[in-house]
Amino acid sequence: MASKENLIVAVLGLGSMGTGIAENILKNGYKLVVWNRTQSKTKALVDAGSMSAETPREAAQQCDIMISCLFDDASVFDIVQGENGLLAGIRKDSIHISATTISPMAATQLTKLHQEKGVHYISGPVLGRPDTAAAGKLRTFLSGSQSVIDRITTVVECYCGGGLINSGEDPAHACVMKLSANLCVASIIDMYGQIYALNEKWKVPTDITKQLFSMLFTHPGILAYSEKVRNREYTNPGGVALRGGLKDINLMLHTGEEVGVPLPFVNVIHDHIVTGIANGLGDKDWSAFAESARLNSGIQQKESNNS
Amino acid sequence: MASKENLIVAVLGLGSMGTGIAENILKNGYKLVVWNRTQSKTKALVDAGSMSAETPREAAQQCDIMISCLFDDASVFDIVQGENGLLAGIRKDSIHISATTISPMAATQLTKLHQEKGVHYISGPVLGRPDTAAAGKLRTFLSGSQSVIDRITTVVECYCGGGLINSGEDPAHACVMKLSANLCVASIIDMYGQIYALNEKWKVPTDITKQLFSMLFTHPGILAYSEKVRNREYTNPGGVALRGGLKDINLMLHTGEEVGVPLPFVNVIHDHIVTGIANGLGDKDWSAFAESARLNSGIQQKESNNS
Repeated sequence: MASKENLIVAVLGLGSMGTGIAENILKNGYKLVVWNRTQSKTKALVDAGSMSAETPREAAQQCDIMISCLFDDASVFDIVQGENGLLAGIRKDSIHISATTISPMAATQLTKLHQEKGVHYISGPVLGRPDTAAAGKLRTFLSGSQSVIDRITTVVECYCGGGLINSGEDPAHACVMKLSANLCVASIIDMYGQIYALNEKWKVPTDITKQLFSMLFTHPGILAYSEKVRNREYTNPGGVALRGGLKDINLMLHTGEEVGVPLPFVNVIHDHIVTGIANGLGDKDWSAFAESARLNSGIQQKESNNS
Repeated sequence: MASKENLIVAVLGLGSMGTGIAENILKNGYKLVVWNRTQSKTKALVDAGSMSAETPREAAQQCDIMISCLFDDASVFDIVQGENGLLAGIRKDSIHISATTISPMAATQLTKLHQEKGVHYISGPVLGRPDTAAAGKLRTFLSGSQSVIDRITTVVECYCGGGLINSGEDPAHACVMKLSANLCVASIIDMYGQIYALNEKWKVPTDITKQLFSMLFTHPGILAYSEKVRNREYTNPGGVALRGGLKDINLMLHTGEEVGVPLPFVNVIHDHIVTGIANGLGDKDWSAFAESARLNSGIQQKESNNS
């Protein structure tokens, strides 16, 4: 690949994330082309030294690496296909990095469309908020051809300083990872909502509840449970067994009932514990209810869990 | 309170948590009395220099501070009440610390029973696993009379090195905090189960999925969302709005459907987003769906959220 001075990068889509990405690429000394559906949004970046393209096709005609940062599956297909689309102008061996949160199914389709043109598609959805984008500190999951990923790493590092998770060859995988990240963050946010509501109704001051989160999210035990679930190793030397965990879950539900706070995650977990016990995991570590997700998905139980 | 040499502490209940607590109190130079329903379990601690009591009453007759570490509400009431119960032998101004995970309602009742005898009840449920108990590194939530809590702090620190969260005067509050902690940990475990099942079926290697958790749980953004939810400040300068969040939630459900993985937390969050939008929060930050828990609990919406 050409040196930084000769490499031209395009950013397609200048929402708050795309704008942050573009600014950081420009700041790092790359030649930059920008495109946005509403062209007025390109002004600040053009004033700062970028070129502007009229269409995704025009951007593709000039660039080696294109980063699209849009809203959903449809908006990505929209700028890729058609008369003025990116694939109509793209040059052999160019690379399109898709930074939008899209479905893994779409990533598989987009890869095929690009391969038919002899060009490269890389999944690179980003995680973060507008302020982290502006600071060049987004996180990203990258998947696709590893030799192509090697060629784009320095460009991606402009906007994801230190936060790349290489997710392998299958372009669908980075999308699964991004959705998993959102699922994880959304679950934590929902849990915050449930716990603040519960504690507020019990009149526990919010600064005390806050200490709980500060303590738990830096605790190594939180990651240790990830390993138990990952490896399906629910050994339990002297700890609380799944059967005992049921007591605590019922206490949580009862504590919510007492003050009128529904705790829907607890209902889910309750049923997962019942499922776990019904499937022979009652004497395993209490965290064994995590297996319910695999059981419900038809993933076969590990032999050792039945012993 | 008497000096360490003259202070006698009892531990009632020698499961793996109680044993760890007792060992660490003994190790720190306190005189220790132990009691357990199955008396054989006291042997190792007696060999190490503890005294053993026949009944909770006998333990109470000898001790200044009693720590009970049992299974549930019923087992705590059981050792407190009756002819051979702790309250039958307790001495004026003694302190009973209840380390069991019990309901906040039980803590309120137990406080009353102790007050009638002119003695002190402190809620001190502990968080951790047998190995952390053995290491003296449990976490605890303490609530009750603050002057009494001051008198027991050095004893509690024997088994909860550096991990005390003072939860105020109301003895119910430490129990609410402990159940909140369990709710938090259980939610994370369930989420691990869901994400590993989803990624396994998409054939994402588990070591890549693991990197996601290592990254997220050390990320300051996770705690930043706690503050947004705590303060109900869902401002959103350029970020994804709740309305936009709905797209990602539907993507998650679809990504699960594609490979046959039910994601029950996502169903819950989906409904919370719909509730949030229906209550005028659609243009707020996407994390505003956490408000659903308060809305569903009859907690009045903040004026500013409607603006």
